[in-house]
Amino acid sequence: MKRSERLVDMTKYLLDRPHTLISLPFFAKRYDAAKSSISEDLAILKHTLAANQDGILETIAGAAGGVRYTPYLGKTHAATYLADLAARIEDPTRILPGNFVYLSDILSSPQDIRRIGELLATRYAYSQIDAVMTVETKGIPLAEAVASYLNVPFVTARKRSKVTEGATVSVNYISSSLKRVSKMELPTRALPKGANVLIIDDFMKAGGTLTGMEQLVKEFEGTIAGICVLCEADFDKEKLVKDYISLVKISQIDAGKRLIVAQPGNFLSQTDFSRF
Amino acid sequence: MKRSERLVDMTKYLLDRPHTLISLPFFAKRYDAAKSSISEDLAILKHTLAANQDGILETIAGAAGGVRYTPYLGKTHAATYLADLAARIEDPTRILPGNFVYLSDILSSPQDIRRIGELLATRYAYSQIDAVMTVETKGIPLAEAVASYLNVPFVTARKRSKVTEGATVSVNYISSSLKRVSKMELPTRALPKGANVLIIDDFMKAGGTLTGMEQLVKEFEGTIAGICVLCEADFDKEKLVKDYISLVKISQIDAGKRLIVAQPGNFLSQTDFSRF
Repeated sequence: MKRSERLVDMTKYLLDRPHTLISLPFFAKRYDAAKSSISEDLAILKHTLAANQDGILETIAGAAGGVRYTPYLGKTHAATYLADLAARIEDPTRILPGNFVYLSDILSSPQDIRRIGELLATRYAYSQIDAVMTVETKGIPLAEAVASYLNVPFVTARKRSKVTEGATVSVNYISSSLKRVSKMELPTRALPKGANVLIIDDFMKAGGTLTGMEQLVKEFEGTIAGICVLCEADFDKEKLVKDYISLVKISQIDAGKRLIVAQPGNFLSQTDFSRF
Repeated sequence: MKRSERLVDMTKYLLDRPHTLISLPFFAKRYDAAKSSISEDLAILKHTLAANQDGILETIAGAAGGVRYTPYLGKTHAATYLADLAARIEDPTRILPGNFVYLSDILSSPQDIRRIGELLATRYAYSQIDAVMTVETKGIPLAEAVASYLNVPFVTARKRSKVTEGATVSVNYISSSLKRVSKMELPTRALPKGANVLIIDDFMKAGGTLTGMEQLVKEFEGTIAGICVLCEADFDKEKLVKDYISLVKISQIDAGKRLIVAQPGNFLSQTDFSRF
């Protein structure tokens, strides 16, 4: 196989398998090529991804070595996308009764979901993450996308369990929007004990739902590796969780004036983009 | 930029944008290269994808032309994966009370979700699909993956609506597993009128839930472009829907004998793999 064909196939192979170590002998055999040729191919791949700031290829030397593709976006890509996203969220037709914001179109758009997933996977690219957790319903696509780019399983806590999940662990939490005690649960076999869990949700007002997920992680003897939300409502000042990351911050909603003000959240300042 | 670098970048660019027409002048400008060089690059890409049977690159001639990447897997890839998936589903620890089957590990695995998404996107690669629909909760990752490979939005019907979605349309249906009338609903702004909708769900017994989604599509004056499920319980003989596609068929569950029998569903016979 020619170099040009190898490069196409290798790019697709690696992109389809993020955060996975592929041995050089595997590629040498796949393409019936010398290891030195494969190394040159990978150098081209690495260089091209780095030049565009849209991915990192790492070569690990030694007998147990190989090459690993890490989804990772540069700060310019992140800043451009988040500025655009915040501008789109400022559309006043998104305002719903009770100062909620309609975001389902963004959460249904493959391009947005992919980009948001890649951004959050950049933030946690070099953290130990064993699983991504969310609670039904709207955070699920985000959690799936992040999990896909990090190549770890994702688990979905449910507000009502179903007979198709077997035994569950449940916790109670104060849902701050509804001002009442709610319950969420997770099947016992969904998450191994002691996992490092990244918590994802779509929208955060005071953060009551996030405290429910924090509790669930503790019930499974796990560690919280991070908490991320797509949108944070900054006008709800009393936050019940600390150290969360938001992609977009909504600082003002005025249904009467048909006004909604949004800007990029703390993601940009809380992410290390220096790996290129 | 050298051809080798262009090929890496072009492969990533196209894979990130399935079912999207990219003009040749766009690439010529991006790489500061002649259109004839770009055409040669694309020929290499097309040939390599076709040789591996893992994608189709189409060139559309003329002023409004360009190139489009279509996720599309060959029959061997599909058959190999589905045989493996069916074998994994035959694990008797999956049997839950009431002849339900635990599938959450598969629905939480990025590799499985990606592969299943790519398979279903192969089936509908040349159909007119405007949106993918599912109902909460477990079908959501599947619907998202299929929508991502088809590059169309996906919409999630809910069993209880939330204040964060605005006005909704609701329908009643007979949930056959529970033998009772249930309700599902979709925000009015989630789906445009008259759309061609692909319905996706994780598990089908008699298909009651699928009839609910069929009704929702009709309420939005849409057309059902297809119905796909990950797993079909073949021992529930009376199906309420016709013309569905299943990836895996479970023909027998015997909790007492700790036996579950599964094989690939009708997907392989219902899919046209002849495009390579």
